[in-house]
Amino acid sequence: MSSVAGFRFAAVHAGLKKDGALDLGLIAADAPCAAAAVLTRNRVKAAPVILTAERVRRGRAQAIVANAGCANAATGKAGLAAARAVTAGVGRALGIDESHVLPASTGVIGALLPAERILSALPALVGALGPDGADAFSRAILTTDSGPKVAGATTKIGRRLVSVLGISKGAGMICPDMATTLSFVVTDVAASPAALRSVLRRATGETFNAITVDGDMSTNDTIALMASGRAGNAPLERSSRDLGRFEGLLRDVLADLARQIVRDGEGATKLVEVTVTGAPSAIGARDVARKIACSPLVKTALFGEDPNWGRILGAAGATSVRFDPERVSVKVGGIPIVRRGVAIGAQAEERARAVMKGREYEIRVDLGAGAGTARLLTCDFSFDYV
Amino acid sequence: MSSVAGFRFAAVHAGLKKDGALDLGLIAADAPCAAAAVLTRNRVKAAPVILTAERVRRGRAQAIVANAGCANAATGKAGLAAARAVTAGVGRALGIDESHVLPASTGVIGALLPAERILSALPALVGALGPDGADAFSRAILTTDSGPKVAGATTKIGRRLVSVLGISKGAGMICPDMATTLSFVVTDVAASPAALRSVLRRATGETFNAITVDGDMSTNDTIALMASGRAGNAPLERSSRDLGRFEGLLRDVLADLARQIVRDGEGATKLVEVTVTGAPSAIGARDVARKIACSPLVKTALFGEDPNWGRILGAAGATSVRFDPERVSVKVGGIPIVRRGVAIGAQAEERARAVMKGREYEIRVDLGAGAGTARLLTCDFSFDYV
Repeated sequence: MSSVAGFRFAAVHAGLKKDGALDLGLIAADAPCAAAAVLTRNRVKAAPVILTAERVRRGRAQAIVANAGCANAATGKAGLAAARAVTAGVGRALGIDESHVLPASTGVIGALLPAERILSALPALVGALGPDGADAFSRAILTTDSGPKVAGATTKIGRRLVSVLGISKGAGMICPDMATTLSFVVTDVAASPAALRSVLRRATGETFNAITVDGDMSTNDTIALMASGRAGNAPLERSSRDLGRFEGLLRDVLADLARQIVRDGEGATKLVEVTVTGAPSAIGARDVARKIACSPLVKTALFGEDPNWGRILGAAGATSVRFDPERVSVKVGGIPIVRRGVAIGAQAEERARAVMKGREYEIRVDLGAGAGTARLLTCDFSFDYV
Repeated sequence: MSSVAGFRFAAVHAGLKKDGALDLGLIAADAPCAAAAVLTRNRVKAAPVILTAERVRRGRAQAIVANAGCANAATGKAGLAAARAVTAGVGRALGIDESHVLPASTGVIGALLPAERILSALPALVGALGPDGADAFSRAILTTDSGPKVAGATTKIGRRLVSVLGISKGAGMICPDMATTLSFVVTDVAASPAALRSVLRRATGETFNAITVDGDMSTNDTIALMASGRAGNAPLERSSRDLGRFEGLLRDVLADLARQIVRDGEGATKLVEVTVTGAPSAIGARDVARKIACSPLVKTALFGEDPNWGRILGAAGATSVRFDPERVSVKVGGIPIVRRGVAIGAQAEERARAVMKGREYEIRVDLGAGAGTARLLTCDFSFDYV
């Protein structure tokens, strides 16, 4: 699936990337949409994030203009003015309300958005709009990604077919730091802004926040969602029985994008799911999972295909989560290597090492201290990273 | 300085390192000493750490036995028994109280200390003891270090010359994770255990904790201090006017060792001091400094000699510390590159880039939000790290 009823896409080269590649993308809806967004919690917010937050609060949007090559972050009032100028230009070019245009940017921090260059490119951009432009759009927002990231899914809600199409850029090193992820999701579902907001928040928590980790977000992180209503379903409200179906659809798309992003982490060669069980609380489980998933020593061991559970235990122990090391068990790819705090032995580790030669596997740590669980996706550190 | 009155040192190869290198070291005092230690706060504590904590609490010690090649961590009751067996052997061989022997280990986690092998090596170890054995000892405790780390200093306290000699192993990646550091400090000062404890804690906070970062410690981290009293000064108490002089001496030695450790971080090519000022509190300053100093994205930028202040600001913003991004200033090697949230320009960045070609420099971030300051040492990430 590469199109959704009610949306057109386009991309051009506006001169922001030096190599002549696509660097400016536009998504335009035929009419104002219900909209929601999840935005970075980083205290240092890029100008487009500030503007998008302000606008999406009203629950309506009709276009998204996104550029790579310049993050327009830490650019102060001039950056905000530049972002406004661009969205005003898009509003004029599309003949829509400027306040219905959401901006997003990624690239170098500290460089001011070259609004003039973008404004000059708008006629070509708007001229290129078409229902099948999602592929071009997906390439225009890339920075260090090795390739575009697109995911789609369709399901029936009531008697209507509803589609969701998501487009992301990721890369950098997602956890534990500040590589920007941008994600744009369009759907033809009919839903209220409040309903969209609640499902987007939950679906993000289970997918993107399992890779970007709350609070460790970049200056520009953005997930924006527009719903055209063209599917013709009975409009979903927060209380609708069918809202869960749509949430599942959205979650599937976001989960797919999240996996694509982790797999494409700069220099990553492995995709590893870190599952922590038996923590005193869900928050504790998350702290431990995060510490393990983000530990450079663990990540280099993943790259080295080394079942170095000492590094895993050491990372777990470095949190403030209470557990008894003598009750901790560790499995790699289903193979127990530590039981109740003690190594099972060289043979088990050899088997785990064989699993770790694969590209995707799970590390499971049971703390033996409660019922809290958490799951995070991570990748390894390899030579390519630097 | 490589000796301190009242102490003898030795090292042998006991068969723990595979390459035949020195791997077992001993420090023996002529008589019981006042002693203190700072030990890992990691919840997963190695057997020698548990034993040392128990013993040093009484404020007395006469010997330290340290090995590389095996951390004896996550080895449960068997590990504790092995550590006890070794210290009992040392006690017998030296004719001293077993409970005055402090054990320390570093190396692979999860492998049980081969007590028999160590016990067989004790006669040779004790036979090799001499006042000039510090060099051999310093080599016996190394793991991935590129070389031994020794620092000494002498000052007058009252009319007496007092000496401090410190020996460390570090390497791995100090921040933000769990590479073990072991440090052993001997001095001829006369001081009470309580006085030693307080100065060791403070001096560690200003030096080692500025690299290892509280709470992110390995399973085996140990800093142990023995004071023979042979300098003949009026014994220092917590209330002694001269205690500050001794604390300064100790701090100088620990600071020297800490710098040697960071400079020798696995694959490190740069030593960078991160100073944060203008935070709402000292703790906030420390959080921000830590986030910056530990950010893989910042560390790779240090390696790339790239004044990427966007990554620095992004890391600062990812903490929960309150500040206004538009009041933040950043200097690299004294060169302002961001003033009140806005980049100064390409020329300033070129000058900063030139500074970053050096091996040691400072990054200074002023948050403009208060009077809290903090300082951390960090190193870069380079290709050698993996």
